[in-house]
Amino acid sequence: MTDCVAIVSGGMDSITLLHYLVKHLNKQPAVLTFIYGQKNSREVTYVQHHTAALNISDHRILDVGVFAPLLASSALISDDVPLPDIDEARQQGQPSTYVPNRNMIFLALAAAYAETLGVQDVFYGAQKQDAYSYWDTTPQFLAQLNAVYALNPQTPVRIHAPFVGYSKADVLRTGLELNVDYGQTWSCYAGGDVACGTCPTCVERLNAFREVSIPDPLTYATAGKA
Amino acid sequence: MTDCVAIVSGGMDSITLLHYLVKHLNKQPAVLTFIYGQKNSREVTYVQHHTAALNISDHRILDVGVFAPLLASSALISDDVPLPDIDEARQQGQPSTYVPNRNMIFLALAAAYAETLGVQDVFYGAQKQDAYSYWDTTPQFLAQLNAVYALNPQTPVRIHAPFVGYSKADVLRTGLELNVDYGQTWSCYAGGDVACGTCPTCVERLNAFREVSIPDPLTYATAGKA
Repeated sequence: MTDCVAIVSGGMDSITLLHYLVKHLNKQPAVLTFIYGQKNSREVTYVQHHTAALNISDHRILDVGVFAPLLASSALISDDVPLPDIDEARQQGQPSTYVPNRNMIFLALAAAYAETLGVQDVFYGAQKQDAYSYWDTTPQFLAQLNAVYALNPQTPVRIHAPFVGYSKADVLRTGLELNVDYGQTWSCYAGGDVACGTCPTCVERLNAFREVSIPDPLTYATAGKA
Repeated sequence: MTDCVAIVSGGMDSITLLHYLVKHLNKQPAVLTFIYGQKNSREVTYVQHHTAALNISDHRILDVGVFAPLLASSALISDDVPLPDIDEARQQGQPSTYVPNRNMIFLALAAAYAETLGVQDVFYGAQKQDAYSYWDTTPQFLAQLNAVYALNPQTPVRIHAPFVGYSKADVLRTGLELNVDYGQTWSCYAGGDVACGTCPTCVERLNAFREVSIPDPLTYATAGKA
């Protein structure tokens, strides 16, 4: 019996979240995966690997590419905006990998689905950003957003981000305890056949594996810099 | 030069809003119209009539029908949920014409577009519901939602609903002063060739015209009840 909705992209944070929900919290999530014109969407097949492994039957993959023109200021969407390296991302107040209001949009859709299913809890994989911050992954964002949803008298949806205070290495440690196969996750923004090793999310991921002192099972084009 | 984003559906509230923005507030809005699997989408052509009349060149019509499965508990979306009449709607705590979290979703998309365009203000046509209330058209909703967006350090989008304290008749009076042609608007939920006259929004519209003591220029299948 479905008891919550989870947004799962196929990156290491959201795949860890999925295993955490099922194995640690004994939840039966309905899973939403959004394809929205990002340069790399191979991670969708990784989500399918994990939903199958965890016997989750309710997995909806929604191609919301119709949104792309609304999000065109992001390097993840537009060919006109170059991907920053990790140093550039750290220096940009809001890095160009930020997708305008993406979390609000996806959480709003997930909350709608929760209402339709008659469940109250929505989970997403926000974690503490070490290198730079997105405004829509913070405890403050979560608290304020839940204050909006609390106004719904019929189905006051609650948004949860269990990893909101975790570093990437904390997420990795959590997943390793839950036997998550990180060879079946994908983080790279760049859209190549192997992970680039130099985009901000590759660097963060590689740093997390270094911190935990185990090798990343993925193949990288270059080793990346810390 | 575009200076705001407006969500315009083609109903009398949002069309009045569009004229109000251009003629009263001297705004140059980018207009977003969403098609989301509702039973009636003819109002889109009415939006085009008004954007042309007001010389608005930036009008995006987004077919977000991919969402429909997430919204399936609404009578506006699902053939399995009958449209209530006005008495039933008044008796339902949250009428079945409620579309789960629709305003949050559309406002989130509009806010993303505002960020992409580099403007801060988003307008939508929420008005005071006389017969029953939707939780996402209230001043409280607006205030709490703006408290979320205020957390965005780069582009703190502000959501505005100038008619939030207006009755339907107040909206109509405002539009009549601005010479809005209400023959080029559409409110009926039912999806027929002429407005049904009995669904909740037809009844509210007809009551507003009665209150203002002018005839509604639309043709109705039946006269509707007050």
